[in-house]
Amino acid sequence: MSILKFFLPKDKVFYTLFESASANLESLAAKLVDVVNESDYNKRATIVKQMEDLEHENDKLTHTIFVELGKNFITPFDREDIHSLATALDDIADYIYATAKKLNFYKVEPTSDQGIIKMADAIKESVLSVNRAVLELRNLKNINKVVECVIKINGIENQVDDIFDLSIENLFENETDIKLLIKKREIYQNLEKVTDKCEDAGNVMESIVVKYA
Amino acid sequence: MSILKFFLPKDKVFYTLFESASANLESLAAKLVDVVNESDYNKRATIVKQMEDLEHENDKLTHTIFVELGKNFITPFDREDIHSLATALDDIADYIYATAKKLNFYKVEPTSDQGIIKMADAIKESVLSVNRAVLELRNLKNINKVVECVIKINGIENQVDDIFDLSIENLFENETDIKLLIKKREIYQNLEKVTDKCEDAGNVMESIVVKYA
Amino acid sequence: MSILKFFLPKDKVFYTLFESASANLESLAAKLVDVVNESDYNKRATIVKQMEDLEHENDKLTHTIFVELGKNFITPFDREDIHSLATALDDIADYIYATAKKLNFYKVEPTSDQGIIKMADAIKESVLSVNRAVLELRNLKNINKVVECVIKINGIENQVDDIFDLSIENLFENETDIKLLIKKREIYQNLEKVTDKCEDAGNVMESIVVKYA
Repeated sequence: MSILKFFLPKDKVFYTLFESASANLESLAAKLVDVVNESDYNKRATIVKQMEDLEHENDKLTHTIFVELGKNFITPFDREDIHSLATALDDIADYIYATAKKLNFYKVEPTSDQGIIKMADAIKESVLSVNRAVLELRNLKNINKVVECVIKINGIENQVDDIFDLSIENLFENETDIKLLIKKREIYQNLEKVTDKCEDAGNVMESIVVKYA
Repeated sequence: MSILKFFLPKDKVFYTLFESASANLESLAAKLVDVVNESDYNKRATIVKQMEDLEHENDKLTHTIFVELGKNFITPFDREDIHSLATALDDIADYIYATAKKLNFYKVEPTSDQGIIKMADAIKESVLSVNRAVLELRNLKNINKVVECVIKINGIENQVDDIFDLSIENLFENETDIKLLIKKREIYQNLEKVTDKCEDAGNVMESIVVKYA
Repeated sequence: MSILKFFLPKDKVFYTLFESASANLESLAAKLVDVVNESDYNKRATIVKQMEDLEHENDKLTHTIFVELGKNFITPFDREDIHSLATALDDIADYIYATAKKLNFYKVEPTSDQGIIKMADAIKESVLSVNRAVLELRNLKNINKVVECVIKINGIENQVDDIFDLSIENLFENETDIKLLIKKREIYQNLEKVTDKCEDAGNVMESIVVKYA
């Protein structure tokens, strides 16, 4: 049991910042699903531009969390957990945006690639659970709800691993354009990274609630 | 000198968990050598399945270490070192298993690739030294034994870098099947990562013994 | 405001070590520019050998910082910041050296690749700003100077992202030798990583001066 527990009611600023960041991630993940289901290059470009703005917003929130962490000696939970959670949420935003950007950059048509569409759907689900868990941090009584979210996130990560494997297998078996193979492999890897980072966020939150339960 | 030294005799649980994890790594590394010397696809699949179980066991041990770290205010050595060592051991398991899995997944025949076989042998040696160093942590009097292990691990990492470079060079010069080149390059990179992570584990253990010596 | 502030005048050793490491990075970055503008393979090899020595020196400095961190309970700024800054400076050295080494290893001719030359120039600029910021850490009164350096570093990182994107785009459009495409893509990725790591170093230094300002 960490000695910091006794200072718990202080510094609500971190809850608000984490909640803003994870709400932002929900918007980003929803737009990722829009992008991969959009067959028009220019319409995709418009959504990717909106995602760029969301990603910049997320960068600012992460920066503010680190600045607040520097200014506050007392924090609602362990400093290293705040640092890890902020980093994981920031990584989720980075990889979601990077994937969407690369689709147009590489001129990869997502609507005909079931792997990309399924992974984007799974990411949206995973990010919903990340957001739900973040909202529970403010009230640490509901440890079960956080654990439920973490189990959901880990399950999705496993599913995405399987979709990733199938997509890569299919790519190496059937894609004869090696340049396109290299591009799609990079996009699959980015999508798979998002669910890894969701799992990281989930693990930190689980360790936070276990400590203060 | 860390103030935590005075609490040293407490919380033997971490030693036991680290020892279980590193013993598990020895089994994983031994099976990696078996896999790369096995010419039959189905027999390789059987070993890879056993490695999957070992990797899951390792995941559970890492998770338990993090949970214990959350529950214990007093730890046998610095919290950040426990975190780093657990992460490094977990990464070693992940990359060993990932390499073995990819061989069959990509239908890469390892027995005819001297680079893969030599790197797997080197990994087995490196993991033996990691395990030996972990066993010394319980009794911090033998700082020299830990340092010896770390020197061994670093030496192996350098050797594997050289084998990696030669293998990549050979691949780009002689492999005309670009898909196979991409697959083998990924397998080499994974093998090389294992010895990097062994070096990370060694560096943490060296810094632990230096602090408490 | 961290409680450690009151111990600030102690342990000048960290300033000296960070200054040595960042001066070393300046030499490495200057030699990277030399390498990418040198059309003779053997002359490039000579510079790469000098860079290897500098990179080893940097490894030793990083190791010394970690050893000192283990021995000192009181540090001039937060332990996690010292760890992050040392890691970032070490990563910068690693990626600069790796890039230079790979040029000859892959027999990639840099003088005809404007992307490589421009990224190397930008890296030299970024590392100059990293070094300038490190020199300000000893005297934390000049928070504005550190912030100026960080803004510069972040601006360069954005520029290099754009050069990277253009280079990759050009590569996929015009390079018909797929092996060369794979090699150059790896070199571009390494160059881009250097400016990411400069940004990491800048962010840590900004957070340090914000805390103690």
